[in-house]
Amino acid sequence: MKKLTILGSTGSIGTQTLNVVEANPDAYEIVGLSAGGNVELLIEQVRRFRPRVVCLASKPLADEAKLHVPFGTKVVYGEEGLIEIASEAEADTVVTAIMGSRGLNATLAAIDAGKDIGLANKETLVTAGHIVMKRASRKGVAILPIDSEHSAIFQCMNGEKRSAVKRITLTASGGSFRDRTRAQLEGVTVDEALNHPNWAMGAKITIDSATMANKGLEVIEAHWLFDLDYDQIDVLIHPESIIHSYVEYVDNSVIAQLGMPDMRVPIQYALTYPERQPTQTEALDLRRIGKLQFREMDFARYPCLRLAYECGRAGLSAPTVFNAANETAVARFLAGAISFLDIERVIEQVLERHTVAAVPDVAAIGEVDAWARIEAASI
Amino acid sequence: MKKLTILGSTGSIGTQTLNVVEANPDAYEIVGLSAGGNVELLIEQVRRFRPRVVCLASKPLADEAKLHVPFGTKVVYGEEGLIEIASEAEADTVVTAIMGSRGLNATLAAIDAGKDIGLANKETLVTAGHIVMKRASRKGVAILPIDSEHSAIFQCMNGEKRSAVKRITLTASGGSFRDRTRAQLEGVTVDEALNHPNWAMGAKITIDSATMANKGLEVIEAHWLFDLDYDQIDVLIHPESIIHSYVEYVDNSVIAQLGMPDMRVPIQYALTYPERQPTQTEALDLRRIGKLQFREMDFARYPCLRLAYECGRAGLSAPTVFNAANETAVARFLAGAISFLDIERVIEQVLERHTVAAVPDVAAIGEVDAWARIEAASI
Repeated sequence: MKKLTILGSTGSIGTQTLNVVEANPDAYEIVGLSAGGNVELLIEQVRRFRPRVVCLASKPLADEAKLHVPFGTKVVYGEEGLIEIASEAEADTVVTAIMGSRGLNATLAAIDAGKDIGLANKETLVTAGHIVMKRASRKGVAILPIDSEHSAIFQCMNGEKRSAVKRITLTASGGSFRDRTRAQLEGVTVDEALNHPNWAMGAKITIDSATMANKGLEVIEAHWLFDLDYDQIDVLIHPESIIHSYVEYVDNSVIAQLGMPDMRVPIQYALTYPERQPTQTEALDLRRIGKLQFREMDFARYPCLRLAYECGRAGLSAPTVFNAANETAVARFLAGAISFLDIERVIEQVLERHTVAAVPDVAAIGEVDAWARIEAASI
Repeated sequence: MKKLTILGSTGSIGTQTLNVVEANPDAYEIVGLSAGGNVELLIEQVRRFRPRVVCLASKPLADEAKLHVPFGTKVVYGEEGLIEIASEAEADTVVTAIMGSRGLNATLAAIDAGKDIGLANKETLVTAGHIVMKRASRKGVAILPIDSEHSAIFQCMNGEKRSAVKRITLTASGGSFRDRTRAQLEGVTVDEALNHPNWAMGAKITIDSATMANKGLEVIEAHWLFDLDYDQIDVLIHPESIIHSYVEYVDNSVIAQLGMPDMRVPIQYALTYPERQPTQTEALDLRRIGKLQFREMDFARYPCLRLAYECGRAGLSAPTVFNAANETAVARFLAGAISFLDIERVIEQVLERHTVAAVPDVAAIGEVDAWARIEAASI
C-alpha cells in the first residue's frame, strides 16, 4: 500500500488523483491533504479518505475546518503548515498539485524528507529546476512527472539510455483560440478563453494553453526533468491531443505515447511506476478517431512560447520572471482588468525591465518572483 | 565488434543489412553470407565484406562462385551448406533474411549453436514457432525481430512488463490495391500488384501486402514472438506507414513506434539492441507529413487475413498449410499462371482439403509443407 500526501487536493489534478485512489482503494492510503480556500470540498475529502493531517491557506480557514473534520485529524495552515504536511513522516509520495510557484518550499521539504514527488506543479521546476533536481538527485528521490506531455516523454524513455535521445517533441492542442488569427484575438472574452477543446482543466492552465505560455513552461520543465538542451526540445501543434508527446532517438526511431485525453492515466502512472495498473478511462480507438493532424508551431502567433524559449535559454532568473509575470497577467485577465493580448504584452514588458541574474536559493527566487509580480500588476 | 552471418544476403533485407554494416564498418564483421542463385551480387559482396564462408543454393552455383571469391573463402551449398554457415563458430548473430519456409533448419542450427537471431524470415515462426521459441529460450538466445511491425512492438515493450500488455496493434498500409474494391481486383496485373505505395520490398512480400497474407503471417509471428493470444493482436489500416505498430497497456496508455518507412532502422536495432546508434536514414517530420489516417481492417475485403487468423487460432499444422499454399499461389501468380484473386481461392481450397494435426518436429512440418505445395500447385 502506497502512502500519499496531496498538495492541492481540491484542484483539478488533486481531485483526479483522489479519483485514481478511490478506483483502487487497496493500493493507496491518503495521509495528508492540502487545499487553498475550498474548505467545504476539503472536509468532504477528509471524511472520505481519512488523512492524518490537512492544511488550509490561513488560520481562519483552518479554524473553520477544525469544526468539521473527524476527531484526531490534525489541521495546519499557511506556508509552515504546507511544509509540515509535505514532510509528514508517513508519506511515500507527495503529489504536488498546487497551482503556480507557491509549491516550491513544500516540494523541497518533501524532497529533503526523502519523499518521491508526483510533480504536477510545473512552476517548481521552471523557477527552481537547478535547486530541485540537484537536491532530488542527492536525496535519491524520484521526480515523477504528472503533466501529460512529460509523463508521455517519461514513458517513451522507459528502458532507453538517455544518451540515445536525439530530441523530444511536446505536442500542443493549440488551445481554445487555435483557429483564430492574431487579429481575431482582440477583445476575446474570459469565457471564450476558458473553453478548451480537448482537456478539462483549471482556469489558469486553460488560459496558459490559449496563450501557449503553458507549452513554454512545459519546455522549461522538460529541460530540467530530462536534462535536455533547448535545441533538443520541439513543440508541434496536434489538434486532437492523442499523441501526448514523443521522443526521437539517434537512429531516427520515434517512440510516442498516445491515449484519450484523460489526466488519470499520467497521474496513476506516477503512482504505480514502474508498474502499470488498470484505469477507469476510455481506451484509445484510432479506427474511430480516423486521423491525427499536425502543423508547425507558429512562434509569431504565440509570442508567449517564443518568450519562454528565450527565458529558458537565458536561464538564471529569467524563467522565474516569465512565470511570475504570466501568473499575474493571467489573474488580471481572469479578473477582467486586462485584455487577452495584454497577457503577452505584460510579460514582455516585465522581461524588458529585468536584468537576468543568478538565483542561487529559494530566497533569491522569491525576491525575483515578488518583483516581477509587482511589475506585472502595474503595467 | 559484432560478428554477423547473413542468410539471404542478396535479397532486399540482406542488402539493406549490408548497407547498415557498411555505414558503421567498425561495429561489425561479416563472417558468413548466403545467397540463392544471384552469384554475381554475392561475389561482389564477398569482395567487399570478406566473409570466411559463403553458401549458394546448389553445387553448380557454388563451383561458379569459387572461381571468383578471394583465396581462402570457403564456399558451401544447399541445405547442408546453409546449416553449416548458420552455425559457423565465429558469428554472434545470424540474420535470417531467407524468403519463405526454407530458412527453418538453418535458423534452428544457429539457435543450437547459441547465436542470437535477427529474424527477418517470418515463416520460421509461422510454421515452427512452437519449436523455435522453446529452443531459443532453452539456449538463452535472443530472437530479435527485423520486420518493421515486430521491431516496433519490441521497441514499445522496452522496459515494460509483459503482464502489463493489454493488446498490440499491427498497422497495415493496405498494399498496392488498398483503394480498390474487390470487384476492381479482377484481372489486375503482376506489375500493378508489385507497385507498393510505401515500402520497396521483394516481390513475394509485396504481393503478400496486397492480399494482406503478409499481415496474417505477421499476426502469427507476433503470437509467438510476444506470447500473446490472437484476441490480443489487432490489425489496423494506416495508409501512411508512419506508425509502424503499437502496444496498448492495461492502464490504457498506448506506446507507438514511428518513423519514415525504411527497413534499415529495424535492421540496425536488431543488431545494436539494447543500444541505439545513428542511422543514415531520413528523420520523421510530422509537420511535413501533416496527417496520419486510420481505418478499420475489412476482413471481407482481405480474406487472406481472415484465413491467417483462423489458421493461427487452429494452431498445429494449420499455419504451415496457410504459408505453403500462399507461397505456391503467389509464385504461380507472379509466373502468370493464376489471377490475383486466385491466390486466396487456392489457399482456401488447400485449407479445406487439410485436416489439422500436430507437427511435433521439423520433419512433420516439412511433410505438411510439401503436401500443401503440391495441392496448391494443382488447383
